[in-house]
Amino acid sequence: MTRYAAYQEKNVLLVGGLGLIGANLAILLVQQGARVTIVDNFLPDHGANLFNIEPVREQVHFQSADMRDPVAMQAAVQNQDLVFNIAAQTSHSDSMHNPLLDLDINCKGNLILLEACRQHNPTARMVFVGTRAFYGTPQTLPVNEQAALQPQDIYAVNRLAAEQYHFVYQRHYGLSVTSLRLGNLFGPRSQMKHPRYNVLNYFIRMALDDQCIQIYGDGQQQRDYLFIDDACHALALAGIVPAAVGQVLNIASGQSVAFKTLIDTLVQLCGRGRWQHAPWPAQAQAYDVGDFCTDISAAARCLDWRPTTSWQDGLAQTVAFYQQHRQHYW
Amino acid sequence: MTRYAAYQEKNVLLVGGLGLIGANLAILLVQQGARVTIVDNFLPDHGANLFNIEPVREQVHFQSADMRDPVAMQAAVQNQDLVFNIAAQTSHSDSMHNPLLDLDINCKGNLILLEACRQHNPTARMVFVGTRAFYGTPQTLPVNEQAALQPQDIYAVNRLAAEQYHFVYQRHYGLSVTSLRLGNLFGPRSQMKHPRYNVLNYFIRMALDDQCIQIYGDGQQQRDYLFIDDACHALALAGIVPAAVGQVLNIASGQSVAFKTLIDTLVQLCGRGRWQHAPWPAQAQAYDVGDFCTDISAAARCLDWRPTTSWQDGLAQTVAFYQQHRQHYW
Repeated sequence: MTRYAAYQEKNVLLVGGLGLIGANLAILLVQQGARVTIVDNFLPDHGANLFNIEPVREQVHFQSADMRDPVAMQAAVQNQDLVFNIAAQTSHSDSMHNPLLDLDINCKGNLILLEACRQHNPTARMVFVGTRAFYGTPQTLPVNEQAALQPQDIYAVNRLAAEQYHFVYQRHYGLSVTSLRLGNLFGPRSQMKHPRYNVLNYFIRMALDDQCIQIYGDGQQQRDYLFIDDACHALALAGIVPAAVGQVLNIASGQSVAFKTLIDTLVQLCGRGRWQHAPWPAQAQAYDVGDFCTDISAAARCLDWRPTTSWQDGLAQTVAFYQQHRQHYW
Repeated sequence: MTRYAAYQEKNVLLVGGLGLIGANLAILLVQQGARVTIVDNFLPDHGANLFNIEPVREQVHFQSADMRDPVAMQAAVQNQDLVFNIAAQTSHSDSMHNPLLDLDINCKGNLILLEACRQHNPTARMVFVGTRAFYGTPQTLPVNEQAALQPQDIYAVNRLAAEQYHFVYQRHYGLSVTSLRLGNLFGPRSQMKHPRYNVLNYFIRMALDDQCIQIYGDGQQQRDYLFIDDACHALALAGIVPAAVGQVLNIASGQSVAFKTLIDTLVQLCGRGRWQHAPWPAQAQAYDVGDFCTDISAAARCLDWRPTTSWQDGLAQTVAFYQQHRQHYW
């Protein structure tokens, strides 16, 4: 892929590199000739899984470190051409139950990483991984980058603050920053032990385990699901396309599908599991943002990127992966 | 003032109550018959000054406590009908030099106060004091509450996160929240020892000290200055007007004036001091957001409030206050 030629010999740091996004991105970047360093803190219950980087285990440098550790981050950022800031506490509900832990990781950790870059490597490019949760319940669909920012839980507030820190550091210290706001991701290498970070992946487990999936309400809520490979291509481009510096870009499929349709397809694909309707629990409803569909035209223009995997194909690949590697994830 | 009758016998907590906003608001609320409790942490260099509440010293309950202290906040919020959340680190430049301290006060402190309210007094009304800094450099003037949120320094990012925390707690836990985004305040009871929190007040000191004020650039930048008494009336109304619950409202004068005109008037008023043009220091320019004028029509409608003090009258009252009480502020 000639579009990624700039990654040849490039030093790339992935902070939070052992989860769904980081591991898949590491595999892609190693394939493109990058020298990849991964730092991850192995926080219990989070996405880190060494098996995730099995295909490139010998080609990446791995360091167990926490982004909240200034000394570790100061060492990690040195001599890097590019820093992908992927580390996060990503559970909406955990952020409500323990807002101070969420603050510690999602705000303090980001400030410490940015301070390390400012002091020790201000010329590296940085790519921040944001989320569609910044928009909350959209006023109009599809949602573009100028939509109102209305985060609806502590996770979304703190992650938005982290994105804004990056642009503050660009403004005051000249760092080169890009933020990609990702839609609902799914695919191989997500953790499968609990549903708190990624409900679709957990439902794939439930189907494979022949369990009954509860669909809250009528299941007609529209969501924009993005297969992880498409997200990784957008991230890789965001790290090298010159016009991406200073930009905030939505990254999603650009198409929405009813949740019920997705789950129905999943169950058919697995040949196992089933689903039933259930009333919305009051607490779950507080997290729900209603229908969501993303305008990805800005990313298409800026990165010359488009998703290429349909959700049906993505689901099939994901199911096949977990059928094969179940023992590393269950 | 019959509009404030609801304050009779009301228990009101002012968190961060000894600075410019808190002290003036305390005086107003005591006059209206409220039972006022002030907590303040007396952080060195910040605005707290016991002389600020001299006129009501015997009528308010005062407690030295930090909003980052969960035990103190849990005790403080109990039995209050209304909590004004005024405490903040308010220096843009300090937030860049020490982003982790800013995070600690402006984010963590707010989460701890909100957790205290959630656990021990979820029915109290809360009024959060926000800032026009959430809007950064406006795309169009005047700036209304739907304008893009583009905080440009760590202070503004963290304060915006704090505002959003309040509405997250309203959404998930039913707290009753109002946020007022205040413009550039000036008036009696601001600290006068350094310019980092409030440059206009410091320039008043410089004029009274017969010093030379540096006006960066041509001084034509338009700003919207609000006299503290007008801000306090808006805050007092926000605490009792039923329609204010759930609202974000801009509070400013609604009129802008060139900085140079303001300083020129100040020097004439004092009969002392002078000013001269100076080139913009690069660092100061990174904080500047250009012209600013505020659309206050939403607050006018919701609170039936309008500012009643011109900036000229406000300046005259402020100069007179500091001429009389200089020894408590210099």
